[in-house]
Amino acid sequence: MELQSYLKERKELVEKSLNRFLPPESAYPQSLHKAMRHSIFAGGKRIRPIIALAVAELFGVDKEDMMATACALEMTHTALLILDDLPCMDDATIRRGKPCCHKVFGEDIADLAAISLILRAIEIVDDIDVAHEISSCLGSQGVAGGQTVDLETMNKKIDFETLKYIHEHKTGALFIGAVKAACIKAKAPEKEAKALLRYAENLGLVFQIKDDLLDIESTPEELGKDTQKDEKKNTFVTHYGAEKSREMMKNYMWDAIKALSVFEGKAEILGEIARFVVDRRN
Amino acid sequence: MELQSYLKERKELVEKSLNRFLPPESAYPQSLHKAMRHSIFAGGKRIRPIIALAVAELFGVDKEDMMATACALEMTHTALLILDDLPCMDDATIRRGKPCCHKVFGEDIADLAAISLILRAIEIVDDIDVAHEISSCLGSQGVAGGQTVDLETMNKKIDFETLKYIHEHKTGALFIGAVKAACIKAKAPEKEAKALLRYAENLGLVFQIKDDLLDIESTPEELGKDTQKDEKKNTFVTHYGAEKSREMMKNYMWDAIKALSVFEGKAEILGEIARFVVDRRN
Repeated sequence: MELQSYLKERKELVEKSLNRFLPPESAYPQSLHKAMRHSIFAGGKRIRPIIALAVAELFGVDKEDMMATACALEMTHTALLILDDLPCMDDATIRRGKPCCHKVFGEDIADLAAISLILRAIEIVDDIDVAHEISSCLGSQGVAGGQTVDLETMNKKIDFETLKYIHEHKTGALFIGAVKAACIKAKAPEKEAKALLRYAENLGLVFQIKDDLLDIESTPEELGKDTQKDEKKNTFVTHYGAEKSREMMKNYMWDAIKALSVFEGKAEILGEIARFVVDRRN
Repeated sequence: MELQSYLKERKELVEKSLNRFLPPESAYPQSLHKAMRHSIFAGGKRIRPIIALAVAELFGVDKEDMMATACALEMTHTALLILDDLPCMDDATIRRGKPCCHKVFGEDIADLAAISLILRAIEIVDDIDVAHEISSCLGSQGVAGGQTVDLETMNKKIDFETLKYIHEHKTGALFIGAVKAACIKAKAPEKEAKALLRYAENLGLVFQIKDDLLDIESTPEELGKDTQKDEKKNTFVTHYGAEKSREMMKNYMWDAIKALSVFEGKAEILGEIARFVVDRRN
């Protein structure tokens, strides 16, 4: 299947660059660099950097010129996974099929690895507007804000607005960040940038609902991370049940794809990625 | 005393700007913004931003043009204090005379507040080279690296090189970052920038040795943080004893002051700050 080989090829490109942008394991202090690399190279679909590269290419930006930004997105995403998995948060044991960072290196080094990945991400970004965009989409009014509300509403009944806030920030913000960072690098015209933003907003929701569905439908072996973790959490699935959630996910997917119509077929790959997010098994 | 009123005035200016640059407590999610502000406004000498402002002024940069960078340094410094105090690291209870962030808001929110402060710092910085400098001085080969080695050598005998590595990175790196960021903003000539770097390297050591001396000589009430925490740690004091450490601290102070000679008296305030770091009581 063509999309599969596209994703595979891009994933390899991204991973080669991640390897280049991270300090080697031999760099002092080795334990910290090992911890950073453990979490980065534990696996992962690299979907955020792949989207950033695809968006930039829509406007003729060479993928090599976009690669530092793409890798910065993956590094910050991984940093947040490390934090998410800590005992004081989701208390997870496996991630991407490997033991969580804190399980191997201890909580202290995991904390330091997470902030070091964020800082390394900023260090490799070559444009101050991109640095601002990544910081803002991750910060207290972005991913960290979503994560806060997620933690604080555990075991509590919440309304749909709050549920949407959590998902739009905890997960959606980085998809939005990926698209916005690519649009900044590509100097995308406003109309196209707006359409892509709508694509990212919807894709973020698709991604999160699919995650919530996988949590109840898969085994840790299939998923590479702990499952059945969401019982105490507010998710689309706990809120609406699986069937209705699946329907909503598909609607958000169609909204994502519809947003691409402004590109008159040139952005087909982004549409295929949206379908892939729905169909994926992990 | 003139220096005291200079420091007081600058501290107030910095705090006013920090207030302006941080999201208000009323911003959603409130708990996260309260946690960020709790740690930022718990007190603190604001010595790093004050040094950055003073260095920039040496080259005629208006302090208002330097203020975002100065505040970014204080935010990142505070973020690292939050992490340092966590149960998995120093397990502290008070900091700057107030309960530690995790004691008030829980470890999860403390973690998120720390990374949110770092990200907010990057968001307010207006120059990509400054963003790179701050990220690099804090990251895995800067403060986070020093903190890693500090944690890993607890209860172990280490040589002087390792001790110096810890102090130069854990503490020194942010003084160096403050000076380098100011030199970037001020487009300082190479000769002066080099002299200021030497000043910062020595001042970082002065600051850390003084901290280690205060740890054994003060009460938590005087110091506003837990004391006698260093017994298991490697410090100049546990390595050389108090008397020899005091002598070394003074030597580093003189080296810091000597480095300023290139300014022919124009950088006197930086010399006074070095003396203040030695004489301070907290």
